[in-house]
Amino acid sequence: MAPAGKIEAVDDHGGSLGRARALFPQAPQPFIDLSTGINPHSYPLFDLPATAFARLPEPGRARDLREVAAQAYGAPAAPNVVAAPGTQILLPRVMALVSPGRAKVLGPTYAEHARTAALAGHTVEEVSDFKDLANADVAVVVNPNNPDGRITTRAALLDLADGLGRRGGLLVVDEAFMDVGPMRESLAGDVARPGLIVLKSFGKFFGLAGVRLGFAAAEHGLAARLEAELGPWAVSGPALEIGIRALADEAWQEEMRSRLAGESERLDKLLEMFGLWVAGGTSLYRFFETPTASELFEVLGRNGILLRNFSWSKSALRCGLPADEASWSRLEQALVIWKNGKHFKGLAS
Amino acid sequence: MAPAGKIEAVDDHGGSLGRARALFPQAPQPFIDLSTGINPHSYPLFDLPATAFARLPEPGRARDLREVAAQAYGAPAAPNVVAAPGTQILLPRVMALVSPGRAKVLGPTYAEHARTAALAGHTVEEVSDFKDLANADVAVVVNPNNPDGRITTRAALLDLADGLGRRGGLLVVDEAFMDVGPMRESLAGDVARPGLIVLKSFGKFFGLAGVRLGFAAAEHGLAARLEAELGPWAVSGPALEIGIRALADEAWQEEMRSRLAGESERLDKLLEMFGLWVAGGTSLYRFFETPTASELFEVLGRNGILLRNFSWSKSALRCGLPADEASWSRLEQALVIWKNGKHFKGLAS
Repeated sequence: MAPAGKIEAVDDHGGSLGRARALFPQAPQPFIDLSTGINPHSYPLFDLPATAFARLPEPGRARDLREVAAQAYGAPAAPNVVAAPGTQILLPRVMALVSPGRAKVLGPTYAEHARTAALAGHTVEEVSDFKDLANADVAVVVNPNNPDGRITTRAALLDLADGLGRRGGLLVVDEAFMDVGPMRESLAGDVARPGLIVLKSFGKFFGLAGVRLGFAAAEHGLAARLEAELGPWAVSGPALEIGIRALADEAWQEEMRSRLAGESERLDKLLEMFGLWVAGGTSLYRFFETPTASELFEVLGRNGILLRNFSWSKSALRCGLPADEASWSRLEQALVIWKNGKHFKGLAS
Repeated sequence: MAPAGKIEAVDDHGGSLGRARALFPQAPQPFIDLSTGINPHSYPLFDLPATAFARLPEPGRARDLREVAAQAYGAPAAPNVVAAPGTQILLPRVMALVSPGRAKVLGPTYAEHARTAALAGHTVEEVSDFKDLANADVAVVVNPNNPDGRITTRAALLDLADGLGRRGGLLVVDEAFMDVGPMRESLAGDVARPGLIVLKSFGKFFGLAGVRLGFAAAEHGLAARLEAELGPWAVSGPALEIGIRALADEAWQEEMRSRLAGESERLDKLLEMFGLWVAGGTSLYRFFETPTASELFEVLGRNGILLRNFSWSKSALRCGLPADEASWSRLEQALVIWKNGKHFKGLAS
C-alpha cells in the first residue's frame, strides 16, 4: 500500500439541515438555511429528457457544455475548460498537478483547499498577506474570498501567476463566487499561460448545488491532465442538460445579478438595524463580526434560522440570502428576539 | 509541475450516438444502440424534489445511500461502502491506493482499468491466465468479465486477495455486471479483509447510466481514503434519491433479473438463426465471434443498429438487448440484409 498521507476529516461546511436539526432539536420547522452562499432563487428547472438519466452522457453533449462554459466564463476556448461533477472533486486533482512541496492558501477561507493540498502531499500554510504566496509551489486565492468577500486584483494575481509559473509552480484561483463578483478581476481569460488554474462553480450562482457541476480552466496541457483523471462521462446527463441551458441564458444571469445585488443590500440594512455592521461578502452572502456571535448563532438557531459560524473565529458570522418574504420576516423576528434577550429596548423601525 | 506520466487517450467505449452517426451518416434514424451493456428497461423515473437539484446533497442522505447499498450488495456495513459519481471516476483513485508498481489486468476486458493504472504510475500488463496475477502489486479482475462473461470463482479470488494482501498489494474486483451474474461468486461480503476492493456500478443494471452513480466496497481504512479523495457532496442530489429508492426495491430487481435472462436467451436464439453462436456474456450483453465481424458491424451500422466492436479482435462482437419489439424487429431485418448480402438462401424460420 502507498503511504496514506495525512488525511484530515472533512470539515463542516454549512448547508446541512441534518446538522441544524441536531444542533437545535427544538427549533420551529422548516429550518431557514442561511448557512451557505447558494443562490436561493434557483435557475428554473425544466423537464429533462428521460435519456439524460438513462443513457451514458454523450461525448458531443459534453463538448457542447465546455463550449458554452468557455463563452459564459470568458475562457479562451473549449479545450481550456474541464467540466467535473462539482469543483470539490477537482480540488485534490488540481493540488496533485504539482509535486509535493509547499502549498500556501490566502486565508482565512474555504477549508477544502488546505485539506486537499495536504491530501496531495503538500505541507500547507495559511497566510494572511498576499505577498507571502510568492514563494509557494501551489498558491491558492479565493476571489472574491469566502467568507469575507476580499477582492484580489487581476493585476496582482497575474503577477503572482507569472512568478510561480517561471518556477514550475501553480496559482489556483477559486472564482466560485465571481459570477456576482467584480468580473473585471476574473482570470478566466488568462488561463492560456502556464501555472494558472481558475475554478468555477455552477451550483452557487445558479442555485443548483445538488446537480454537482463545476469547472477548471487552464492551459491545454493541464486541462488534458485533469480530463484524463476524470475519465469519460464525468458529468451526469442531467447536469449536462441543465448546465448547457443555464450557462447560455445571459438574460437570466443579468437579471439575477441585479436582483441579488438588491437583496444583499436589503440584508445589510436589516442587519444594521440590529447593530450588525456588514464588513464584506458578495451578493450571495454577507460577512460580519460581532462580539456576541456565538449567542446570535444560538438564538437564531433555536428560532430555526441557521447562520454559518467558523472554527477560526469567535466573532465572525456569514449570512446568506433569505429565499422569500416569509423567510425575511422570520429572520427579522429572530433578530428581534435576540435583541430583546440582550435587553435591547425599542427598534428604530 | 509534477511529471505528467503516461496519459493515454480515453478509448472509445461504445454508447455514443454521435460516433454512430459519424460512422454511418446514411443510417435510418433513430439509431438502435446495442453497443453497451446498459439495461434498456430503466428503473422507473419519478418526480424528484426540487431540493434534490437546488440544495447541497445532505450528508444524512448520503449515509442512507451507503446503508441501502451495503444491504443491496451484501457488503458488511455502510462504512465499507464509498459512493461516487460513477465507478469510472473512482478508478484512478483505486489504482493510486498502491504505490507505483506492477499492475496486472486479466484481459481482454474493459479498457479503463489499464488506462487508469498507467495514470497512477504503474507499469501495466494484460494477462490472459489468472495464475499470472499472483505476483502483481495491483491485480484487476472483472467478474463477470466484460465482454465475454467469463466467471472467476469467489474461492480463487479470495485466495488471490489473501496472497496480494500479505504483500501489501491490492485485488480490484470489478463487479459492474454482477447484478445479473452468479451472485454466489460476488466478493462484496468479503471486503473487511485487507487488500481487496470490489467495484459496483449502479447505472448498468438499473438502466440509468446518465445519473452517474457507482460504489467501491473495501475495509474501513481504504474506504476512508477514497472518501477523503472524493470529498463532501460527491454524489448529486438526484443520484442520491434515485439510488436510495432503486437499490431498496428488491421486487423490481428480482423481476428484472428474470426478464433480462429471458431476453438474453431470445437474443441468443435470434443470433443463432443467422449462424452467430454466442460464446458468452451476461444477461445484459452477449458476446460472439465470427470471421465476418467487421462486415456484420458495417451492415448493421448502415441499417441503424450499433454493435460493439473491439480494437483487439477482428472477429469479436458484443450485442446488448433491444429495448422493444420495434427494435427486435429492426435487428432481425438488418440480420436478414446481412445474410442476403452473403448470398445466404432461405431462413429457417
